[in-house]
Amino acid sequence: MSLLVVGSVAFDSVKTPFGAVEDALGGSATFFSASASYFTKVNLVAVIGSDFPEEHLSFLKSKGINLDGLQKVEGKTFRWKGEYGFSLNEAKTLDTQLNVFQTFKPVIPPSCRDAEIVFLANIDPDLQYDVLEQVRRPKWVACDTMNYWISGKKDSLLRILKKVNLLMINDGEARQLANEPNLVHAAKIIRAMGPEILIIKRGEYGALMFNGKTVFAVPAFPLEKIYDPTGAGDTFAGGVMGYLSKSKSFDDRDLRRAIIYGSVMASFNVESFSLDRIRHLTHDEIEARSRAFKELTHFELS
Amino acid sequence: MSLLVVGSVAFDSVKTPFGAVEDALGGSATFFSASASYFTKVNLVAVIGSDFPEEHLSFLKSKGINLDGLQKVEGKTFRWKGEYGFSLNEAKTLDTQLNVFQTFKPVIPPSCRDAEIVFLANIDPDLQYDVLEQVRRPKWVACDTMNYWISGKKDSLLRILKKVNLLMINDGEARQLANEPNLVHAAKIIRAMGPEILIIKRGEYGALMFNGKTVFAVPAFPLEKIYDPTGAGDTFAGGVMGYLSKSKSFDDRDLRRAIIYGSVMASFNVESFSLDRIRHLTHDEIEARSRAFKELTHFELS
Repeated sequence: MSLLVVGSVAFDSVKTPFGAVEDALGGSATFFSASASYFTKVNLVAVIGSDFPEEHLSFLKSKGINLDGLQKVEGKTFRWKGEYGFSLNEAKTLDTQLNVFQTFKPVIPPSCRDAEIVFLANIDPDLQYDVLEQVRRPKWVACDTMNYWISGKKDSLLRILKKVNLLMINDGEARQLANEPNLVHAAKIIRAMGPEILIIKRGEYGALMFNGKTVFAVPAFPLEKIYDPTGAGDTFAGGVMGYLSKSKSFDDRDLRRAIIYGSVMASFNVESFSLDRIRHLTHDEIEARSRAFKELTHFELS
Repeated sequence: MSLLVVGSVAFDSVKTPFGAVEDALGGSATFFSASASYFTKVNLVAVIGSDFPEEHLSFLKSKGINLDGLQKVEGKTFRWKGEYGFSLNEAKTLDTQLNVFQTFKPVIPPSCRDAEIVFLANIDPDLQYDVLEQVRRPKWVACDTMNYWISGKKDSLLRILKKVNLLMINDGEARQLANEPNLVHAAKIIRAMGPEILIIKRGEYGALMFNGKTVFAVPAFPLEKIYDPTGAGDTFAGGVMGYLSKSKSFDDRDLRRAIIYGSVMASFNVESFSLDRIRHLTHDEIEARSRAFKELTHFELS
């Protein structure tokens, strides 16, 4: 099934206790697309400025990503600058320059309008809605959001939530959206807003899925070296949606497997700055780490 | 194999957003013993004051717990008062009255000196060492500790760590003990201090085990109602050690299973104040929840 993502392409300047990068390739749609490209054909919809170098376009093309929906407009590309402490749990944003992203109106080109699976990365929920209207017959839709939209555009967010099958947010966002501290209870409240499936991202603690029938929990992969958590959530989403697009099934078994592949991709992503580790992955590495997840979590009762 | 625990028996006054109790039965050795009693015969070593009511002794005896090592001395029993906010992650201690616990010198009675498995709950590491000297031929020893001893009695702690097979602490304590923020790296450092196995308790996020051969991670059971997390760590330890005492095996397969049973017991414990839920558990309930843990974590790769 064809996969469409709309989100940001950006330059990230990131400092962690283990190093720093300036104006490195980033953005939700970039991390997502690169990750999903290991499983399926990805159609990317985003905006870049006139300063966006050809080498990044070549990289995305080398992953088979369709860039027909990548608008290039006069001006500077979206820039984000952040810093992480030793806990690596939360970024401290030092600077955000929306630049060409400020006036971004996603236009879905003809080659992408037949996409069957859509991922709406974390952008203005009104834009997420506009994107969905432009896709002819979306069969399965997932979206992300953040505290900024939950508090600032709740009505627009609730409108798009009625249209999505899967919402992927972190635990703080889930508690905020449901106005409920207990995650099991929060999941019920959020699922009643529209999405039949809720995946809660918990950073270094892994992920939880609620689909009404069962709850699935997976820990994050314990890594000795974590260089930069930037993009982990989007890389996770790319693995989840990429796998589902490949499996063409959304039953409990495939959703669990998708979450494992999402976790695998996120675990690689944090091992380097920007997309450096995701760039050069092999399918053997992905399969080996998915087996390592099995060993990490497996037990027999008797 | 016979199991011996040394720790505290206390009265807890606890307030959470869901209710409050005054002078309820608590203490590390109490939670541990009640939990382990579902798997094995427990020998309890602790101290109580002259105010300790007969009904609590009857309860412990009803669980088959040997109280020969429970010293009763003139004075008041150890009292702790704490409060939890909505996050339920960390208690705010409002008052600690050590009372008879202040001068506690554990004496292992003849009926307990042949214990093969020993759990040293979180007490002064010098007392933990004294206990171990009194046990004739301990085959397998586990211990707990806390930030107070890591910063205040490091040398004594390092002495006892050389004698233990398993250390069970939380993630903050592991980072502090190893002086290293990364848990995988911290586990290597701590295992080099003595314990071949390290179990890191992560509260609502579950537990991690490092045994040199593999890493095992299990999430906590997602519960809709969590009334009081007091004693969850000791109840977890009771399930782990109780199961190991019953299985008489410490291989990777049994360690993983032990951690599941520890997680099962902790998940029940937090569903009520004090030991109210642990008091009346059935083996069927324990088995049903262990199967629920399987469903929670199971996935197939292909």
